[in-house]
Amino acid sequence: MRTPSHVVVDWGTSSFRLWALDAGGHVLGERRSAQGLAASAAEGFEAVLESYLAALGVREGVPAMMCGMVGSRAGWKEAAYLDAPVRLDRLAALATDVPAARRRVAILPGIAQRRRRHPDVMRGEETQLLALTREGHDGLACLPGTHSKWVRLEKGAVERFSTFMTGELFQLVRTATVVAPAVEGAPPVEAAAPAFARGVADALEAPETVGNRLFELRAGWLLADAPAEETLARLSGLLIGLEIAGARQRLGRLDGTVLIASGPAAALYRRAFAVAEIAGVTLRDAETCVRDGLHEAARIAFAPVDGAAR
Amino acid sequence: MRTPSHVVVDWGTSSFRLWALDAGGHVLGERRSAQGLAASAAEGFEAVLESYLAALGVREGVPAMMCGMVGSRAGWKEAAYLDAPVRLDRLAALATDVPAARRRVAILPGIAQRRRRHPDVMRGEETQLLALTREGHDGLACLPGTHSKWVRLEKGAVERFSTFMTGELFQLVRTATVVAPAVEGAPPVEAAAPAFARGVADALEAPETVGNRLFELRAGWLLADAPAEETLARLSGLLIGLEIAGARQRLGRLDGTVLIASGPAAALYRRAFAVAEIAGVTLRDAETCVRDGLHEAARIAFAPVDGAAR
Repeated sequence: MRTPSHVVVDWGTSSFRLWALDAGGHVLGERRSAQGLAASAAEGFEAVLESYLAALGVREGVPAMMCGMVGSRAGWKEAAYLDAPVRLDRLAALATDVPAARRRVAILPGIAQRRRRHPDVMRGEETQLLALTREGHDGLACLPGTHSKWVRLEKGAVERFSTFMTGELFQLVRTATVVAPAVEGAPPVEAAAPAFARGVADALEAPETVGNRLFELRAGWLLADAPAEETLARLSGLLIGLEIAGARQRLGRLDGTVLIASGPAAALYRRAFAVAEIAGVTLRDAETCVRDGLHEAARIAFAPVDGAAR
Repeated sequence: MRTPSHVVVDWGTSSFRLWALDAGGHVLGERRSAQGLAASAAEGFEAVLESYLAALGVREGVPAMMCGMVGSRAGWKEAAYLDAPVRLDRLAALATDVPAARRRVAILPGIAQRRRRHPDVMRGEETQLLALTREGHDGLACLPGTHSKWVRLEKGAVERFSTFMTGELFQLVRTATVVAPAVEGAPPVEAAAPAFARGVADALEAPETVGNRLFELRAGWLLADAPAEETLARLSGLLIGLEIAGARQRLGRLDGTVLIASGPAAALYRRAFAVAEIAGVTLRDAETCVRDGLHEAARIAFAPVDGAAR
């Protein structure tokens, strides 16, 4: 491997992704694992980081730029939230250095929305958005996940955002409620499943009935032996449809939304957006975005004072 | 204790309530415990029942009328669902006898709604409703709980109903999500709490945003140290408000609803109904209703063939 210019790390609650990049942002090497916050705190964050870097042969002088829950109070070093509205190109300038680390390690701040009626927070997604605003994108972005984010970007700034507990509710309902036996053993939801689209449509039509729809999933299994695969697809559709209905209420028309997602979530949300007749949707790969955002931040933060590295 | 005419039992998933009644339905003795289905299946349903009856001194010839999950597939003896619409005075005639029990034991059937788009089931609530229809009540009834029921009664029949997972979601969100640390240690929700009423009002105003409101509970705690007591009240209000919004969608105007509830749920739902400006609400005690309904069923089912016991 060539000597990298810097390494970048997306370190979340349950995942660790590291890339060694050259000055142009090209990937020279990478490591990924499930060694998130909980697993790393015991071993020590620096030990975890250095073991991956040693495996890649990255020498000590190479600085590391990070984002994600590693910057939370429960992480390596707290990187205090920036308050929205905030320009995303401020992120790099306000990165927090980890004191006494073996190499230079900086952690990007999250963003807090301190509106009394609508408090909200993000940590990690802001870095994906940085990749977007760097290209001049304005408007809405949707970042699906355990806690899906809907963000309004204006002139390079996060103007406002709303988080939805969609992914967390999905996991809970499917594993820990009376719906669980009705979806037991179901394979992952297919975006093309008609039951998924019907769930989205039903939630959009009458989102206030979601508590009833959830119970109907159980009753449909009890009374009519509804197949687990279909029931799980319907559950997923209902919760994603509810999120879209909520995003409309919070942010208005959703046309032109940039969907920042990877893997199965990308396909499910694209299908749901089609059911909701959201026009002009573009898809960006979430992993590419977080890497590009981290690279951009590293380029700014680690540049020589005279700016020659640009 | 005088010799009872019959005993009646409401035997649910997590609770057991038994009353020894005279021919007029007056309570001669009672027993209650947390020995619900799970706890009873291991020991044996008959052994559990007889131990309580022995403690009360009820002799073997006295018959027992039961309702609740004891009649489910996982219970003592399955009492097959009746299909809605169904007249409630049919319940007693269609009770299922437990074969080879030491005394006569009959279990009331639940009700199934086999509508393709809106499958639903109840088991136990139908017995509370029997007490209502016996008095000639028509219209809507709301039975709050782990799975809240909203029921349209017409001419003594359950015409249709909708179950909402309100109580189950409340328990899950408060214990098993990122909201949990924000409500840790909170005392039970007070119906008079302003945060409860605000939660109800917010959910009624924009029920589609519930997934966002839940995350805001966490963010309000992170950013503004919202007190656990207030956050829990708000959570309760949001979920009950969502249920009311859903019930309106499913059943239309809710004026004149009979609220069948006991304990804290009665106070919370009354307050929520007031916030939702539901007029003409009357409250019936849930426990009295189930006992009265069981008594009515026992009176019909256990009457001598010539009807002399009436």
